[in-house]
Amino acid sequence: MAFISDTPLVSAADAAADITMPRRSPSPALIATLQQRFGERFSRSRAVLLQHGTDESAYPPAPPDAVVFVTSTDEVAFVVQACAAERVPVIAFGAGSSVEGHLLAVEGGICVDFTQMNAVLAVRPEDMTATVQAGVTRSQLNATLSGSGFFFSVDPGADATIGGMVATGASGTNTVRYGTMRDNVRNLTVVTAGGEVLRTASAARKSSAGYNLTQLYCGSEGTLGLITEITVRLHPHPEVCAAAVVNFPSVHAAVDCVIQAVQAGVALARAEMLDALTIRAINAHSNLSMAELPTLCLEFGGGQAQVDEQAEWVRQIAAECGGSEFQWATRPEERTRLWSPRHHAYFAVLQLRPGSRCVTTDACVPISALAQCIADTVADIAEHGLVAPVFGHVGDGNFHCLVLIDPENPLEVQAAEAFSHRLVRRALHHGGTSTGEHGVGLHKVGYLAEEHGETGVAVMRSIKRALDPLNILNPGKVVAARLDEGWRTDESSPYGKAQ
Amino acid sequence: MAFISDTPLVSAADAAADITMPRRSPSPALIATLQQRFGERFSRSRAVLLQHGTDESAYPPAPPDAVVFVTSTDEVAFVVQACAAERVPVIAFGAGSSVEGHLLAVEGGICVDFTQMNAVLAVRPEDMTATVQAGVTRSQLNATLSGSGFFFSVDPGADATIGGMVATGASGTNTVRYGTMRDNVRNLTVVTAGGEVLRTASAARKSSAGYNLTQLYCGSEGTLGLITEITVRLHPHPEVCAAAVVNFPSVHAAVDCVIQAVQAGVALARAEMLDALTIRAINAHSNLSMAELPTLCLEFGGGQAQVDEQAEWVRQIAAECGGSEFQWATRPEERTRLWSPRHHAYFAVLQLRPGSRCVTTDACVPISALAQCIADTVADIAEHGLVAPVFGHVGDGNFHCLVLIDPENPLEVQAAEAFSHRLVRRALHHGGTSTGEHGVGLHKVGYLAEEHGETGVAVMRSIKRALDPLNILNPGKVVAARLDEGWRTDESSPYGKAQ
Repeated sequence: MAFISDTPLVSAADAAADITMPRRSPSPALIATLQQRFGERFSRSRAVLLQHGTDESAYPPAPPDAVVFVTSTDEVAFVVQACAAERVPVIAFGAGSSVEGHLLAVEGGICVDFTQMNAVLAVRPEDMTATVQAGVTRSQLNATLSGSGFFFSVDPGADATIGGMVATGASGTNTVRYGTMRDNVRNLTVVTAGGEVLRTASAARKSSAGYNLTQLYCGSEGTLGLITEITVRLHPHPEVCAAAVVNFPSVHAAVDCVIQAVQAGVALARAEMLDALTIRAINAHSNLSMAELPTLCLEFGGGQAQVDEQAEWVRQIAAECGGSEFQWATRPEERTRLWSPRHHAYFAVLQLRPGSRCVTTDACVPISALAQCIADTVADIAEHGLVAPVFGHVGDGNFHCLVLIDPENPLEVQAAEAFSHRLVRRALHHGGTSTGEHGVGLHKVGYLAEEHGETGVAVMRSIKRALDPLNILNPGKVVAARLDEGWRTDESSPYGKAQ
Repeated sequence: MAFISDTPLVSAADAAADITMPRRSPSPALIATLQQRFGERFSRSRAVLLQHGTDESAYPPAPPDAVVFVTSTDEVAFVVQACAAERVPVIAFGAGSSVEGHLLAVEGGICVDFTQMNAVLAVRPEDMTATVQAGVTRSQLNATLSGSGFFFSVDPGADATIGGMVATGASGTNTVRYGTMRDNVRNLTVVTAGGEVLRTASAARKSSAGYNLTQLYCGSEGTLGLITEITVRLHPHPEVCAAAVVNFPSVHAAVDCVIQAVQAGVALARAEMLDALTIRAINAHSNLSMAELPTLCLEFGGGQAQVDEQAEWVRQIAAECGGSEFQWATRPEERTRLWSPRHHAYFAVLQLRPGSRCVTTDACVPISALAQCIADTVADIAEHGLVAPVFGHVGDGNFHCLVLIDPENPLEVQAAEAFSHRLVRRALHHGGTSTGEHGVGLHKVGYLAEEHGETGVAVMRSIKRALDPLNILNPGKVVAARLDEGWRTDESSPYGKAQ
């Protein structure tokens, strides 16, 4: 694979080294101000700081200086204003489930915990929208919607907060039908770096009124503003829902089947692929005897006639691609049973090597390149003797490798990181992206220029500088702007002079 | 309607007055540079300038100083670099079909005409995307796609260029199913204000890698960069397509029918409403005898079983809402005949007052407020003795009034503008937007602060200042930044010092 350079652009080790960057600690006066305002909702306890400086990535913890548990947009604005006055970093925290180092307080600062800001503010069936505070989790929102006939579609692996999902531009298993978080966010309430509050859009379904601030903040990972409230789209539950499992002689055949189905206009609700190793892990974990072959878990939704018709199309396509007979399920408990291999994949995979940890990759490529990219990746895994099952959201071109490592073995950590690097460069070579849904955080910073070009990154940095002239919002992430970066600010800034 | 203030925030007359702003004319040296590079593709002929200073709005023409007909991204970069050196405005021009004054050279400058940059660069059936130069029109792209099994979905009234459609965030009649231009753009090639070239995204279907530059440039109306190439999503032609026409006793009933259908999960391909006056105009124009009642034109697409099933659902819903029997059509020529009232609405309406011109409004509100907003608007039309048929994209909450005026009669012009103003404020009162799909241009500038708040506009202006520090890109539009605006720029700008 000649296109893959031998020298990583960035490594987890490099990025982790940055965690020791100089910090700007809050003054005793700032601590006192926050303590007075928040009382018991302000904490500097060691355990709380450690928890808020740890995510699901392989990075060592980087705790903040203090944590405030906010309950309103006004409180968030208060914290940001207080921190801006001392140029102290502010980092938003939701469920702590990010996987690329997003929430690590690499330059210290105040962590704003949204978990108590968790009210579902409005559900509007007629407009098919709901408005939530940023700390509402996706499962909480769907529990609230129970019985309404509607659901919120975006379903990343973790039970993340909606605020966090907006901030990372998350997606999940039914993106192929219902879109990513970007497609499902309508309006945001945001606290700017100056502690002002704005709404990014109206309540209309569409608008051409000015720059798209909703999409600018979505995916900005807390570096341009703090998202405090979100209006999301809801979708009606389909009348009928049917699930199917089918296996294929090769990954290529499984991918081809999904491509052809989507091209034929089948509105697949889900299309997840599990590779042979993942199935082997599931067999061992759950004492099953599924064929250890590349397998698709599919879901169809709509009216009965539509589901029957589209399922038949896909059955024919699958047969032409060499697929097995379909195993079907329509009742909810049967669907759950049929999908359980997919749902249990993560834990089953970890049991392939008891005691191991998992480095998760997130490549996403054009569909036309997906089969080749996965095949090359599986060959790479074999060549380097890694244990790394592969599964993914085939309809989106997005797949994950779970590289199992002994976290105490530096050689294994290094090997996993080198594999991750080769995979990202392979994805970029195919015209893809370094991150389909997990975000940049610290880990993918080094790939941004390769993906967007120097001009693209320069434009992103201009935006960061314009909207966060003091660089206090989650510094070091996405565009890697650091607190000590010598940006000039002047009276023309809407947020006043630098301190 | 107490919420409507008596004093318009902005009027067409006010905005038109701005057309006499001081201009920064290109120097003889700049003229010579462009003439030398572009030869016959450079023009200062009076007729060409007038054509490029005129759009479909009610504004008087505001011609540029010169027009260049570009054929490549490099040529666009050359023009921008040359203009930046003299701080001369640059205005992009596609089909000239904008309706809010977008392309008027209110501060003079060089018009970049994209009509010769009209190659379809790639069609990728497997990825369901196509890449086009900005001057390709939507009908040209669809002609190229003929026989491929795919189509490009966004269909504004005019045969606009794809570049122009991206720049205004356009949409059309099938947005209810396939989304707006924003939902259908994947990747852009953009020339920045410094004459650099960037691509906003990878070829993957989704990404979480950095700020969403694609959506930032989409809808920026040429004020942040010049869009030169676009990758758009394609959709498979549905196997079966069926059209239906049904009328209702009231606008409210027609709107309710569409809302309930969408809530039931019906994938309506189109749902257009024509009010009674529009039907009367069509009857007169085409010598028909349709019931002069609020009417829905519907379209269904999918497999035969799906179409049958969903059409039956909608038939039942329509009956419950007091709708008439459906008139059906499935063969292409029948569908065209059945939809011809909708297609001919614009010209039929103009014939209600021969010799008149038309002021087009573009309010968009949450679906829940649509029926009330239309009812109040129809009452307003009656109260003020206007002739203004109403039709709209009901599924999106977007509707247009065509106010017929004698352009030579200042009182009528003023009355139409006052009506437009009341309508915008009514839409904003309902949580809607001043523009659902036509864009801001000059005409909606004054409503931006009301819709987005002062902080929202301040953020937009910060972005404009960061990405166009010399303010040469279509000055005066969207955020109304003028050429003489005293923005400080310094060496930290990625585009160098102000001249």
